Amino acid sequence: MKLLIVGGVAGGASAAARARRLSESAQIILFERGPDVSFANCGLPYYVGGEIAHREKLLVTTPEMLKSRFRLDVRTRSSVEVIDRASRKVRVRDLDSGREYDESYDKLIIATGAAPFRPSIPGADLPGVFTLRNLHDTDEIRARVVGGVKQAVLLGGGFISLELAENCVRQGISTTVVEKNDQVLTPFDKEMTQPIVEALATRGVTLLLGQTAESIQSGPEGLEVCLTTGRRLGAQLVIFGIGVRPESKLAVDAGLEVGPRGGIRVNGHLQTSDPNIYAVGDVIEVKDVVSGDPVQVPLAGPANRQGRIAVDNIFGRPLKYRGTQGTAILGFFDRAAALTGASEKVLRRANRPFRKVYVHPTHHAGYYPGAEVMTLKLLFDPTTGRVLGAQGVGGVGVDKRIDVIAVAIQAGMTVFDLEELELAYSPQFGSAKDPVNMAGFVAGGLLRGEHPQMDVEVLEPDIAAGRLFLLDVRTPQEFASGHIPGAANIPVDELRGRLGELPRDRRIASYCQVGQRGYLATRILLQSGFSAVNVGGGYKTFKLFRPSA
Amino acid sequence: MKLLIVGGVAGGASAAARARRLSESAQIILFERGPDVSFANCGLPYYVGGEIAHREKLLVTTPEMLKSRFRLDVRTRSSVEVIDRASRKVRVRDLDSGREYDESYDKLIIATGAAPFRPSIPGADLPGVFTLRNLHDTDEIRARVVGGVKQAVLLGGGFISLELAENCVRQGISTTVVEKNDQVLTPFDKEMTQPIVEALATRGVTLLLGQTAESIQSGPEGLEVCLTTGRRLGAQLVIFGIGVRPESKLAVDAGLEVGPRGGIRVNGHLQTSDPNIYAVGDVIEVKDVVSGDPVQVPLAGPANRQGRIAVDNIFGRPLKYRGTQGTAILGFFDRAAALTGASEKVLRRANRPFRKVYVHPTHHAGYYPGAEVMTLKLLFDPTTGRVLGAQGVGGVGVDKRIDVIAVAIQAGMTVFDLEELELAYSPQFGSAKDPVNMAGFVAGGLLRGEHPQMDVEVLEPDIAAGRLFLLDVRTPQEFASGHIPGAANIPVDELRGRLGELPRDRRIASYCQVGQRGYLATRILLQSGFSAVNVGGGYKTFKLFRPSA
Repeated sequence: MKLLIVGGVAGGASAAARARRLSESAQIILFERGPDVSFANCGLPYYVGGEIAHREKLLVTTPEMLKSRFRLDVRTRSSVEVIDRASRKVRVRDLDSGREYDESYDKLIIATGAAPFRPSIPGADLPGVFTLRNLHDTDEIRARVVGGVKQAVLLGGGFISLELAENCVRQGISTTVVEKNDQVLTPFDKEMTQPIVEALATRGVTLLLGQTAESIQSGPEGLEVCLTTGRRLGAQLVIFGIGVRPESKLAVDAGLEVGPRGGIRVNGHLQTSDPNIYAVGDVIEVKDVVSGDPVQVPLAGPANRQGRIAVDNIFGRPLKYRGTQGTAILGFFDRAAALTGASEKVLRRANRPFRKVYVHPTHHAGYYPGAEVMTLKLLFDPTTGRVLGAQGVGGVGVDKRIDVIAVAIQAGMTVFDLEELELAYSPQFGSAKDPVNMAGFVAGGLLRGEHPQMDVEVLEPDIAAGRLFLLDVRTPQEFASGHIPGAANIPVDELRGRLGELPRDRRIASYCQVGQRGYLATRILLQSGFSAVNVGGGYKTFKLFRPSA
Repeated sequence: MKLLIVGGVAGGASAAARARRLSESAQIILFERGPDVSFANCGLPYYVGGEIAHREKLLVTTPEMLKSRFRLDVRTRSSVEVIDRASRKVRVRDLDSGREYDESYDKLIIATGAAPFRPSIPGADLPGVFTLRNLHDTDEIRARVVGGVKQAVLLGGGFISLELAENCVRQGISTTVVEKNDQVLTPFDKEMTQPIVEALATRGVTLLLGQTAESIQSGPEGLEVCLTTGRRLGAQLVIFGIGVRPESKLAVDAGLEVGPRGGIRVNGHLQTSDPNIYAVGDVIEVKDVVSGDPVQVPLAGPANRQGRIAVDNIFGRPLKYRGTQGTAILGFFDRAAALTGASEKVLRRANRPFRKVYVHPTHHAGYYPGAEVMTLKLLFDPTTGRVLGAQGVGGVGVDKRIDVIAVAIQAGMTVFDLEELELAYSPQFGSAKDPVNMAGFVAGGLLRGEHPQMDVEVLEPDIAAGRLFLLDVRTPQEFASGHIPGAANIPVDELRGRLGELPRDRRIASYCQVGQRGYLATRILLQSGFSAVNVGGGYKTFKLFRPSA
């Protein structure tokens, strides 16, 4: 077996090591265009900011180590330029010497990844304007950062931009994030990003939504980023973080099938349209676990597992890749935002029926010091209760709950299963009713009809049309410090004695701070003959949708 | 519907609140012998040590709140003495007035919990000798702790004792833990408690294993605890934490079925042998999720869920309790030890076939600062790969991995499923290959035969009998700083060139620090025609079994 692997970072390096474990006799050549293999992609922003202090930490392994330990033929600074499928060979260019040569293969794995997109606006290539993909980029950006950059403009409000924002702020750099959409972190639903928007403000990051760069030019402060709104931002460092594109040119040129967004098409065994060629990592199109649709989700975990699975198939172990569910997490200082499975907007776009609940529990027992509030959003099938997706935002413990739900999604569990999860509880770590149980209870109650619910963002037209009586069941103090416009206030503890104040000709939507007292109020009203619903997730959820209300 | 609930803490209080949510018209009476309801049981040790500074934090709810919000008839200081099943009424004693009266019921829920066991040794009732169950106990213990106790003896090495040990140490008290078994935390396998044993030592707690108190007497330092070994320990505070017994006398007297350890027998609907009587919480026998056997597992999470489920059944919603898997966690300062499902000793006792793996990954990417090593032990079915149990010990992130595996167990997942879990990764929160994935990879490889493995604790006889050649594949430096007795050293990177030094007449067991290089060595040896196995979990696992070797 002669196995060639093109690309030596996550998927490629995993594939190469796995191949050697499975076969001592195989000839394995790993081509990498850059000088490094298997570097810590996801750590690059943290080296920029000095959080990771030593560059060598980013080198998960070295070509030398791969050679000595795995007897891999590692060829860095080597670009695979052409695949000749008919004669099963590739044309390789040594980037240092310029020499070109052919290398034959029995099987080939393409793991070329995805490249950050740099738009063709004027000035996009000026010195001081970067994308962040590899150690070379990182070195250059870091040199500027430690060299005294005062202002940075980060174009795009995705994961990498916000990670870079944290690291720029840590270096005392005045930082602006510019995002063309009306929200940061587009895989999330907009309201769930609100706590991150607030954290950006708290940390002094300027966020400009609905805007994009039209051009970049030299200016009095080094660079000047001109936005579509006419605004001009001075900066000495500009980084594009507006998404990545699969580096599939090699595959396209070889006539391999690719999807509409350029990702290489593979079957369940990660085999391309040529049975001798496999592809893994950010360069491929994967199956979305929830929808079954082809999607492109650049993530390190799936890339690593794909490398392993492709090799297993090559060596006669017919494993299947199950698809990607898009589990991801952003850390921004002490805040975390994580998600898994489908978002509400993806479900809407696909016209897939769903219901959703919001809960706002603390990450561990409220009676133990240091409890931090998080918000969990759970999306599920309205008929079967199957969990479709979840998003969490808060501080400590958000990662745990999203991981727990990620497993539930992979297992095909329902919200009724979430109610019954038995998770580790002691006051430092959780609650007798864990946040995930709570989300399950609310969702389960909703589906069982105990707990009819109305989404907070659709109240307004019904209130305006007089179809809905909005009832705030919190204390007068809570009500006074902010409530949903149009609400009347009867605290839940007084509700049973004041039912006469409520209309019987309209539906009553009750709400509290997070949904729990509203739930009890709804139960009281329903059993007293009222038409009643609970406003899902209460006032806290309303504030996610209407932060300035 | 007239519903009586006996016991107002976790299961009872949950049941009462749920009952009101389901029915506004039901008459619900909650009897509680003590003065408090629904207090934070699991927080008591932390109030003793002042970690929870305010006593009112421990009162999750009050009788007044339950009355005003849930219109519950809460009767504290009320002891239910007799159940008259034939006429469906109970005899209640008001503990303050001494008055006795009858109360009839349609349905009755017994939620009397479990009481800490106080053995009948001489002096067990002396002033200064306690058990910890309720706020009254807590107040008395705390009064002593702040009153200047210098030495404390904690009898029993279970969860509560170790939590109390932390809190005594925080108060500067010289603390000794006495445990009659040869390990602390008996739900865990012994080797997995080793890091906790080390943490106890580091924090200055004296641990005496294999010993127990024979008597307690007054002594020069207040109290003197006399151990079976003849040792005498001076103390001003002695607390028994040697397990709990279900408080099922009420049920036994009423002729309800109980199990061999006194737990009330219930069916899947949590109904006792009398269809009008349900029982929930620490007083019942539950079905073990993994083995299906009846067990007694006093845990707050299950108690809360059971309260809910019993009530749902009473109000015509035929839910089933799925059983308990024993998910639990101990925090001891910055250390955590958690488990879920079956332990190795439980599986051995049940003669159930299993395999196991140990992994020692870091809690997040190793290249990001602050990565803490944890040890995970995974137990699984040797034929199907079904996950049977897991234990984790380390620092941050142990809770997350055990929760993830707890979900996998509930979903009936296999180790092959753990390989494919897609968990949230960014360097502060995890790794591209999460610790749970790693455990899955090792276990999956073992079952697929890629990776034959030998358990570290059974090496010795085979080495002594000359049937095994033990090969340490770490670096000479690592070897020199400690290795398994009898091992030869060939670093993995030199192995391919030194195969001639290895015997072909014996099986070769290779090991490294955690198992990964040993795995590669095993693959190299197998493919070179040797009989080879990897020593599971490497030298780090050996040290768990032989800490002083």
